[in-house]
Amino acid sequence: MDLGDSRLDVDRMRRIGMPEAVYAEGKTASQCVRIVEALLRVDGGPVIVTRTSPEQRKALDVLEPTATWSATLTWQHAEARPDGRVAVVSGGTSDQPVVDECEGTLSAMGVAVEAHRDVGVAGLHRLVDVVPSLQSASVVVAVAGMEASLPTVLGGLVPAPIIGVPTSTGYGSSFEGITALLSMLSSCAPGISVVGIDNGYGAACSALRILGDG
Amino acid sequence: MDLGDSRLDVDRMRRIGMPEAVYAEGKTASQCVRIVEALLRVDGGPVIVTRTSPEQRKALDVLEPTATWSATLTWQHAEARPDGRVAVVSGGTSDQPVVDECEGTLSAMGVAVEAHRDVGVAGLHRLVDVVPSLQSASVVVAVAGMEASLPTVLGGLVPAPIIGVPTSTGYGSSFEGITALLSMLSSCAPGISVVGIDNGYGAACSALRILGDG
Amino acid sequence: MDLGDSRLDVDRMRRIGMPEAVYAEGKTASQCVRIVEALLRVDGGPVIVTRTSPEQRKALDVLEPTATWSATLTWQHAEARPDGRVAVVSGGTSDQPVVDECEGTLSAMGVAVEAHRDVGVAGLHRLVDVVPSLQSASVVVAVAGMEASLPTVLGGLVPAPIIGVPTSTGYGSSFEGITALLSMLSSCAPGISVVGIDNGYGAACSALRILGDG
Amino acid sequence: MDLGDSRLDVDRMRRIGMPEAVYAEGKTASQCVRIVEALLRVDGGPVIVTRTSPEQRKALDVLEPTATWSATLTWQHAEARPDGRVAVVSGGTSDQPVVDECEGTLSAMGVAVEAHRDVGVAGLHRLVDVVPSLQSASVVVAVAGMEASLPTVLGGLVPAPIIGVPTSTGYGSSFEGITALLSMLSSCAPGISVVGIDNGYGAACSALRILGDG
Amino acid sequence: MDLGDSRLDVDRMRRIGMPEAVYAEGKTASQCVRIVEALLRVDGGPVIVTRTSPEQRKALDVLEPTATWSATLTWQHAEARPDGRVAVVSGGTSDQPVVDECEGTLSAMGVAVEAHRDVGVAGLHRLVDVVPSLQSASVVVAVAGMEASLPTVLGGLVPAPIIGVPTSTGYGSSFEGITALLSMLSSCAPGISVVGIDNGYGAACSALRILGDG
Amino acid sequence: MDLGDSRLDVDRMRRIGMPEAVYAEGKTASQCVRIVEALLRVDGGPVIVTRTSPEQRKALDVLEPTATWSATLTWQHAEARPDGRVAVVSGGTSDQPVVDECEGTLSAMGVAVEAHRDVGVAGLHRLVDVVPSLQSASVVVAVAGMEASLPTVLGGLVPAPIIGVPTSTGYGSSFEGITALLSMLSSCAPGISVVGIDNGYGAACSALRILGDG
Amino acid sequence: MDLGDSRLDVDRMRRIGMPEAVYAEGKTASQCVRIVEALLRVDGGPVIVTRTSPEQRKALDVLEPTATWSATLTWQHAEARPDGRVAVVSGGTSDQPVVDECEGTLSAMGVAVEAHRDVGVAGLHRLVDVVPSLQSASVVVAVAGMEASLPTVLGGLVPAPIIGVPTSTGYGSSFEGITALLSMLSSCAPGISVVGIDNGYGAACSALRILGDG
Amino acid sequence: MDLGDSRLDVDRMRRIGMPEAVYAEGKTASQCVRIVEALLRVDGGPVIVTRTSPEQRKALDVLEPTATWSATLTWQHAEARPDGRVAVVSGGTSDQPVVDECEGTLSAMGVAVEAHRDVGVAGLHRLVDVVPSLQSASVVVAVAGMEASLPTVLGGLVPAPIIGVPTSTGYGSSFEGITALLSMLSSCAPGISVVGIDNGYGAACSALRILGDG
Repeated sequence: MDLGDSRLDVDRMRRIGMPEAVYAEGKTASQCVRIVEALLRVDGGPVIVTRTSPEQRKALDVLEPTATWSATLTWQHAEARPDGRVAVVSGGTSDQPVVDECEGTLSAMGVAVEAHRDVGVAGLHRLVDVVPSLQSASVVVAVAGMEASLPTVLGGLVPAPIIGVPTSTGYGSSFEGITALLSMLSSCAPGISVVGIDNGYGAACSALRILGDG
Repeated sequence: MDLGDSRLDVDRMRRIGMPEAVYAEGKTASQCVRIVEALLRVDGGPVIVTRTSPEQRKALDVLEPTATWSATLTWQHAEARPDGRVAVVSGGTSDQPVVDECEGTLSAMGVAVEAHRDVGVAGLHRLVDVVPSLQSASVVVAVAGMEASLPTVLGGLVPAPIIGVPTSTGYGSSFEGITALLSMLSSCAPGISVVGIDNGYGAACSALRILGDG
Repeated sequence: MDLGDSRLDVDRMRRIGMPEAVYAEGKTASQCVRIVEALLRVDGGPVIVTRTSPEQRKALDVLEPTATWSATLTWQHAEARPDGRVAVVSGGTSDQPVVDECEGTLSAMGVAVEAHRDVGVAGLHRLVDVVPSLQSASVVVAVAGMEASLPTVLGGLVPAPIIGVPTSTGYGSSFEGITALLSMLSSCAPGISVVGIDNGYGAACSALRILGDG
Repeated sequence: MDLGDSRLDVDRMRRIGMPEAVYAEGKTASQCVRIVEALLRVDGGPVIVTRTSPEQRKALDVLEPTATWSATLTWQHAEARPDGRVAVVSGGTSDQPVVDECEGTLSAMGVAVEAHRDVGVAGLHRLVDVVPSLQSASVVVAVAGMEASLPTVLGGLVPAPIIGVPTSTGYGSSFEGITALLSMLSSCAPGISVVGIDNGYGAACSALRILGDG
Repeated sequence: MDLGDSRLDVDRMRRIGMPEAVYAEGKTASQCVRIVEALLRVDGGPVIVTRTSPEQRKALDVLEPTATWSATLTWQHAEARPDGRVAVVSGGTSDQPVVDECEGTLSAMGVAVEAHRDVGVAGLHRLVDVVPSLQSASVVVAVAGMEASLPTVLGGLVPAPIIGVPTSTGYGSSFEGITALLSMLSSCAPGISVVGIDNGYGAACSALRILGDG
Repeated sequence: MDLGDSRLDVDRMRRIGMPEAVYAEGKTASQCVRIVEALLRVDGGPVIVTRTSPEQRKALDVLEPTATWSATLTWQHAEARPDGRVAVVSGGTSDQPVVDECEGTLSAMGVAVEAHRDVGVAGLHRLVDVVPSLQSASVVVAVAGMEASLPTVLGGLVPAPIIGVPTSTGYGSSFEGITALLSMLSSCAPGISVVGIDNGYGAACSALRILGDG
Repeated sequence: MDLGDSRLDVDRMRRIGMPEAVYAEGKTASQCVRIVEALLRVDGGPVIVTRTSPEQRKALDVLEPTATWSATLTWQHAEARPDGRVAVVSGGTSDQPVVDECEGTLSAMGVAVEAHRDVGVAGLHRLVDVVPSLQSASVVVAVAGMEASLPTVLGGLVPAPIIGVPTSTGYGSSFEGITALLSMLSSCAPGISVVGIDNGYGAACSALRILGDG
Repeated sequence: MDLGDSRLDVDRMRRIGMPEAVYAEGKTASQCVRIVEALLRVDGGPVIVTRTSPEQRKALDVLEPTATWSATLTWQHAEARPDGRVAVVSGGTSDQPVVDECEGTLSAMGVAVEAHRDVGVAGLHRLVDVVPSLQSASVVVAVAGMEASLPTVLGGLVPAPIIGVPTSTGYGSSFEGITALLSMLSSCAPGISVVGIDNGYGAACSALRILGDG
């Protein structure tokens, strides 16, 4: 579908089972509105916009989003899928926008999500509380900044697929998420795979691929 | 299990469904032999040693490995699992040791693997030949060095979970796999997740987590 | 030509066949105006200003630019050249200012340009549509951010010279274009050459050198 | 063409006008021999092997290469092309293997090459001697390590396309060619495009694309 | 001298022949005023404040600076020194604040300075015009961003001490001056020494050390 | 303690002898207020908030902090500890917020602190004045930016534990504190340990661990 | 003490309570022998040589070291100190040389050390076994490579001072210890301080400073 | 002078007052011999070869060097210059090859040099001994690895020009000299200028430029 300055991959949903999200950063508010309008007209599946600014959200409000998750907006949610549950675990309050981007994308796709926020490794007891819930999840998404020990500790306790999302939060030596990224990639726990820094949408898509046709 | 200078996590298999592999780099040949002997005595599950040097392999030969995959040696293979097939796709001959580490680990765990070597993106026709096989796989592991376009191109064609393994091969600007790593993490195709550079064993464990109890 | 705080290389056009562009970043709006005025008085060839801010553009408006391409402004276009066509291909909407800088520079020099926007690699079918047009171009400029697979895929399909322009768009692991830059430099497709991050003007000049005297 | 562990892209010559070179690093001597034998049997075009070790060269000697350029070996040279000449300029003796890789690849393709070695910028008079020859070349390849000023200085003097090849030679602050790479990418001279560190073969392919069908 | 939250090294002038400059970044406007007032009362030598913001400059204006050089303000200039002249050469308009910081510091110390702005390497003829003046200078300060070829080219033409100052100007691959810094440190011309990025004050102090007691 | 979007580790004080500080960056002003209110209600120990913005400080003011140290606010100070004194030494005025974060945290915990500001290494005499005081301290915290020689010089003079805090102040080659961090980690003086860039709170906690139960 | 090409700081023991160790890397075997001989003649305190090669160890053997710890050799051990115990915990077999360097240095100084090797975070149960011993230690040294979660997890469980030593072991994304270093510096557990990569000697000296006069 | 594969800049001595040194790394032993032979025949001035391997030194021995300084060999020394003395100060035994490269180059040029080896900052008393000698030197070259505090401390004590040479010695966090380089560039002492890592020859040339015609 050709909108003059952008062509939409409306066929993606059928081809690989997930829709193309609209990445708002670097687009004007009116470009966002125009793209979402076009998608709502043409596309049967969910419409997802990530990384919106307050100004973009205000402009998109006239299109009445089905749900708003921090900077992520969604329309036309898919039907609830009968099985498979994704657990999203995060280390701190500041990781919330990334958790929201992941949770919002999955919800729009009809997937049941359970978010466990503020489950840090420096207080192991908090972690212990949620382990049973994680052990029965189909996929675990571990969102963490700073030294990002969370997926490593989970990796030794939980048999499910674990997708790490490094976040750009934290003090000066976190280097905008590079420390968390490297830490997750070097994890001594086997079978952790990782998506890009702050990429909650990417983690949701990885989970969707694992859940399959549902 | 305490071997004096190493304690083995013999319980890991039961806890998270995958055995602890022995990482040979930085160990002496006799340390390797001693650890494998101990594992063969105690552990019911597969025994896997990765990143062996020629000298280590020679020493381990007396323990008669069930299979040898480049630098990866395996013993006590698990029974063949009834369902689920992993496709391992790679971009060039030089990625072979990484492909072998992944394929060897999965085979030792009883998983059916199909390896497609030398399927580069600069000659798309080679890729087209294998797409049908990839589309029916449970998991796709994409091993690639240099600019690592392979998982991105696959990501638009295949609905299965895709695990990228960046490799350290290639000319000077590949920077020992950093380019491939960053490229995979930044992929414009949704839902690619990534393990560390050259970490074929990690990709295999990610695949095992996805396949579940089989 | 000495303007007090800048000397202009008005002879460059004759010497190497391309004019000196005025790089606006770090200059005041009035410095920009003074330089362009001087060039319009003295120089026979095209006048090109790149990377203008809205404020600079407003100030330069009084000099009535012949054309405006996002942040690039041009005056005194060269005559249309009889032969040679440059195709500029880009991966996403957010690469538009870089595409514009390239297209604007070439147009001011009288070169025929054809821009194909939003031709991503994660949807190969979009790419397939434009390949015939690319195969008949004299030069292909491939503008791409994130993992920048575009020039690699083109490199295996198109015999023309391919100039890659990495852009600074994309999520956290794109690292302001470094990922795209390294990816292009490591391309497994032969004969891709690369200019600096976001340097659409540089790509245009490379194309001009290739087209020669026209 | 499937050799068991490598598939050759024998069709590349026809598709994009340049053959696939065999990159020897990371291959065994016997793998090299097997691949070259296969290419000599099947392929009509030139056969090129780059980055050979002394041991690999010794093994390949039995296949009687048409020419040897440091670590680059070539067979079945194309017919001499009627027009177009490439000038390869380099800054120091230690850049010779990179110059040779470029010159060897071009010669095997039938292109006339003129190499100007040891033309440094710290002694401008040496440069002045070769400028007339460069000004009549179809393409200039500038090979330089350390601070890599060479392509920048040439860029202001020569109208032809200039392809920079950063090399990994030089003292500690050259950082294995990164300094030269960044310097070339940031060049204040317009229209310099760059290939990867030490990638003489890539520069030759870029030149081939520019020369076209010859 | 203790001002509560800062102790001033008022003895430095006597000990090493140059005064302590006040680095304004990260100080409040009133902290700046208080420090300068104290220095004007106590210290016989020049008072120099670098990297002021517009707001700080406005506040400092009430102390009536002897001279203002972009963001550098000076008071109590030393007597003009009888001999020794420093030439400051720069590559572009955007390097002006750095040139000014260097020129202002030297002037306040009574040193004769001659600034040659916008002398780029991509137009060698501009450089040739100023070489005679540089050849008679006591010290040459070469200020350059981007690929920073300037000190290298000068290094082969001028016997005087050459101090390179890399600047943070330029397109995306300049990486905030890192490219220029590495380029200068790797220069193939002998005897170039370098100060930190944008550190015009540091270059002035290096020159002062070389000029000695004057 | 579960606040909906954050769980507080109120037990930490008992477990490891130091309270959890509230890191304000990335939290809204009202989130900060809500968390502090909850802590003041529940927790017997000190409440510490670091890295507040002016807006957050204004909002927190209604809760009447016991003390304000630049961006660090504290409530419910612990009783003064009978023994042990921490000396905090810093190199320049711009390091003050980091010194304050450290001093504020320690004071809230009842520890006697002595801060020596602006004790640079380039004027050794200033350092000599404070050495006797440092030699009788229980712990020395050395806060320094730029080349961060301070802990190295102290390391050869003082037998107490020395904790280095690199700061992000300084000119362009300080690279936001990376230079200071690397310098401290490479110190030729034995027994310097280091916390993250600008992490005054972390240094305070390290000191608390060393002082023990007091 | 002047040995011609090295001056020994024999007074350091008295001044800051720890001897100068001889760092063997980059010294010839005979330089090592000469320095140790001199120290044994003059110095009353312990003599410690770190980072010896096999060849250097062979040469030093004639001086009959009191103890050998991998690459660390010690002579003239101090008397056993009455109180204070250091626990050294490490994540894997490959960290052993670093643990040994730390343990050897402390032992030579008369400090009681207890080393817990191979206590990884991916198997939390191993960690739980040793926590009681760590909780009664005066200082905990946590040696870890890869993602280095160990000190973070310990930081939430143990009140003692914790010194992290990142090690250069691990797969490709460990980047020679940089990942572990950054991870430790960014730890979300309060009060972890860190020494340089592989610097077991430095950690021992930090512990000595904390233990004080014993 | 054209030697087939290298052109020598025999005129450099006259033009900028210093000869071109032969950088041996990356050249064969016989290339070195051939170049030196040619220089000895043609050139009136000193001949200097740096960074020789043992094998190269053995081959060059037949040409009977006037002096050998670690890896630096010199012939045809210039006459002793009447005035000006360079002090070379270094932090440790392992910096000796760099000190030698600097001292050898200066000696071959007839300059009086005084080398103070092993003058570390962690033992300030060693430094104090040599300060008087440094205060009367014309130029001070400060060679230092690790955290490289030496030039900073000297910068506050000595008025002469100070040239810093970072060296690649030291533990893991020295990062092959990058830490020392950044530290010197960020020095809080005014007027330190720096040459590339391990570049003793470059420091000597900088000193020569400062000494002038002698």
